[in-house]
Amino acid sequence: NRVHRIAVIPGDGIGKEVVPEGVRVLEAAAKKFGFKLQLDNFDFASCDYYEKHGRMLPEDWKDQIGKHDAIFFGAVGMPDKVPDHISLWGSLILFRREFDQYVNLRPVRLMPGVPSPLAGREPGDIDFWVVRENTEGEYSAIGGRMFAGTEREVVVQETVMSRVGVDRVLKFAFELAQSTPKKHLTSATKSNGIAITMPYWDERVKEMAKSYPDVKWNQFHIDILTAHFVMNPDKFNVVVASNLFGDILSDLGPACTGTIGIAPSGNINPERKYPSVFEPVHGSAPDIYGQGIANPIGQIWSGAMMLEHLGESEAAKAIVTAIEKVLAEPKLRTRDLKGPANTVECGKAIAEAL
Amino acid sequence: NRVHRIAVIPGDGIGKEVVPEGVRVLEAAAKKFGFKLQLDNFDFASCDYYEKHGRMLPEDWKDQIGKHDAIFFGAVGMPDKVPDHISLWGSLILFRREFDQYVNLRPVRLMPGVPSPLAGREPGDIDFWVVRENTEGEYSAIGGRMFAGTEREVVVQETVMSRVGVDRVLKFAFELAQSTPKKHLTSATKSNGIAITMPYWDERVKEMAKSYPDVKWNQFHIDILTAHFVMNPDKFNVVVASNLFGDILSDLGPACTGTIGIAPSGNINPERKYPSVFEPVHGSAPDIYGQGIANPIGQIWSGAMMLEHLGESEAAKAIVTAIEKVLAEPKLRTRDLKGPANTVECGKAIAEAL
Ligand SMILES: CC(C)[C@H](C(=O)O)[C@@H](O)C(=O)O
Ligand SMILES: CC(C)[C@H](C(=O)O)[C@@H](O)C(=O)O
Repeated sequence: NRVHRIAVIPGDGIGKEVVPEGVRVLEAAAKKFGFKLQLDNFDFASCDYYEKHGRMLPEDWKDQIGKHDAIFFGAVGMPDKVPDHISLWGSLILFRREFDQYVNLRPVRLMPGVPSPLAGREPGDIDFWVVRENTEGEYSAIGGRMFAGTEREVVVQETVMSRVGVDRVLKFAFELAQSTPKKHLTSATKSNGIAITMPYWDERVKEMAKSYPDVKWNQFHIDILTAHFVMNPDKFNVVVASNLFGDILSDLGPACTGTIGIAPSGNINPERKYPSVFEPVHGSAPDIYGQGIANPIGQIWSGAMMLEHLGESEAAKAIVTAIEKVLAEPKLRTRDLKGPANTVECGKAIAEAL
Repeated sequence: NRVHRIAVIPGDGIGKEVVPEGVRVLEAAAKKFGFKLQLDNFDFASCDYYEKHGRMLPEDWKDQIGKHDAIFFGAVGMPDKVPDHISLWGSLILFRREFDQYVNLRPVRLMPGVPSPLAGREPGDIDFWVVRENTEGEYSAIGGRMFAGTEREVVVQETVMSRVGVDRVLKFAFELAQSTPKKHLTSATKSNGIAITMPYWDERVKEMAKSYPDVKWNQFHIDILTAHFVMNPDKFNVVVASNLFGDILSDLGPACTGTIGIAPSGNINPERKYPSVFEPVHGSAPDIYGQGIANPIGQIWSGAMMLEHLGESEAAKAIVTAIEKVLAEPKLRTRDLKGPANTVECGKAIAEAL
C-alpha cells in the first residue's frame, strides 16, 4: 500500500479555514484511489507562533518537516501583528531556499463558472503554466544603504543569477513544454532594459532550447508580455520566467482567469531531495478571516498538484474534475464568486463530487 | 508671439511614417492657437544613421539638440540590423539620462472607438496616469559576470535608488495627483520580496505623503497591482512606480484600454533645464513599415503632451478632443482598429477636426 507522509501547516488567517477543506478532499481521494496519507499537523510558520516564541519556526524545524514527502501549506502573514518581511522571509521564502524548491509552478486556467474579466473568453480559451524560478534572481538579500538619513542616501540591491540556477528551471520548463500537446514555450525577458542579467537569461534559454528541438519557443519583454496576457491569453502554453517576473505573471495570469482566489501553486524540488510546498496563491486575507466564507478551491487544487507530484496522477485529475463540477454549479460557489456556499459547504461538495 | 523650438527625430521604421502626421497636427494647432513652431529635423538616433556612421549619435549631439525646447521623437530599433541594447541604450535611454528626464509620464485612457479587451468597460471608465521613474533603479548598467563559460558562472546586476532620484519623481506624482479631481495616488512596491530597495521606496513614499495631506494614497505589491489593472482599472488615478515596474505598468495599462498603438508618452525634465522627449509607446514596428498603414495617433497624442509641457494647454486639449472625434468615426480609423484609413488619411482627419 502506498503511503504519503504530509506535513500540514495551516499558517495564518484563512489558511486555518481552507486547509481543513483541502485535507477533507485529500482524504476522500486517498480512500477512493487506494493510497494512504499520514498527516502531521504543525502550528509554526504562523504569526501566532511568532507572537508566542519570537520566531516563525522552531530551531529544529528541518528535523520536524524535512523528511516528509510534501508540505501542505495554507497561508502566512498578519501584517498588523508581524511585518511581512519577517513572517514571509522567516517561513515561505526560507522553505523555498532551504528545501531548494527552485520551481514555482502555477497553472493559469479559465474554469467554468468563473467569469473572466476579459471580454469573450470561455473555459478552454485560457490554459497554460507559469514556471517561475524560485530561489535566486531578483529576490536576493544582498545590498544595503549608504549615507543613510542624508540627501546623498543611496540604496543598492543585487540581482544574482547563476548558471546552475537558471539552467535547472529552464530544463524543467522545456521538459514540461515537451510533455504538452502544443510543445510551446515562452520566455519572459527584459534584456533591452535590464541589460546584464536578462541578456544572460536569454543566452541560457537559447542554449537550453538546443536540447529540445521539438519544442517551439519565443520570448517577449516583460512589459509587452503582460500586455499579451490581457490581449492574447490563448497564445500561451508554458511561460518560464525569473523570480520577480514569474511572481508578476503568476498573479496577472490568474486575474485574467477571473480570480486569484482559486489559483494553486507548487514550490517544487523536482529531485525530491527535499519536501515541496503546495499552497494557494491567495494569502491569509486577514480581512475575511473568521467568517468561514473563504473559497477553499485554491487550497484543494494545491492538494491536487501535490498528489500529482507524489505520483498520484489519477487522483490529482479526479480532484480537478470535481472542482470543475462544483464550480459549474451556482449554488455551490462561495461568496467571492457570487454564490451562497461557505467554506465548509464548498469543500464538502468537492469531496462528494469525487 | 510665442515660439517653440522643436527637434524632430523620426528614428526608425514607422517612426518615419507617423512623425510627419504628428508634425501636420502640431502645425495646424500652431496656426489655430497663435503660436509659432520652429521645427528642426535630425536623422540621427536611427539604425540607418548607425549603419553609416558606426554610432547612433554624432559626437556633438548635445550641441545640436540640447538647446531645443523639446524633442519630438518617433521610434528607434531595427533588431535585424542593430541589436536593441546598442540602438536603445545609444539613443532613447541615453537621452533619458543625459537630459535628466526623470519622469516618464503615460496616460492610460479608454478612448471611444477602441474596444477594451476587458469585459464591460466603456470610455470614461479607465482614465489614469502612470508616472514612471526614468533614470535609475533597476535600469543600471552596474554588474557583471564571473566564472564565465563554466558551471559556476554567475551574473550580478545592481538596482540603485537614490534619495534624490526617488524623491523627485514622487514629488512630481504627488503634485500631479493633487492637481486632479480625485486627489488619489497609488504606489507600486514589492517590499515583501525585493527586500532592500523596495522598502526604501515605501519609506520615501510615506515621507513624501506628509507634504501632501490632501492626497489620499495606497500601495500594492506589483504582482497584485497588475491583477488590479485587469480587475479594477477604474480604481486608479495616478500610479507611481520605479523604472522597471513603471515600464511594465505603462504597457499593461494601454493594453487594458485596447491598444498600445495609440498610447503617448513624455520623458520629462520637469525643471526644463534640458529638453524633454515626447514619443509614442509603440516601437518602430519593422514588420509593418513601408506600407503606410501605421496608426499615427500615438505620435499625435505625444505632440499634445509636448504642447501641454510647453504651456500650450488649450492647443493640447484641442488635439486630444480631435483624436477622440476621429476615433469615434469608423471610416477614419486605421487598420489596427479595423478601419480602412491609412496613416496619412488618419493624420489629415485629425488636423481637420482641429
Ligand atoms: C525599449 C525599452 C528599453 C524601453 C524601456 O524599457 O524603457 C521601452 O520599453 C519603453 O517603455 O520606453
Ligand atoms: C508574499 C511574497 C513574498 C510572495 C512572493 O513574492 O514570492 C508571493 O507573492 C508569492 O507569489 O508567493
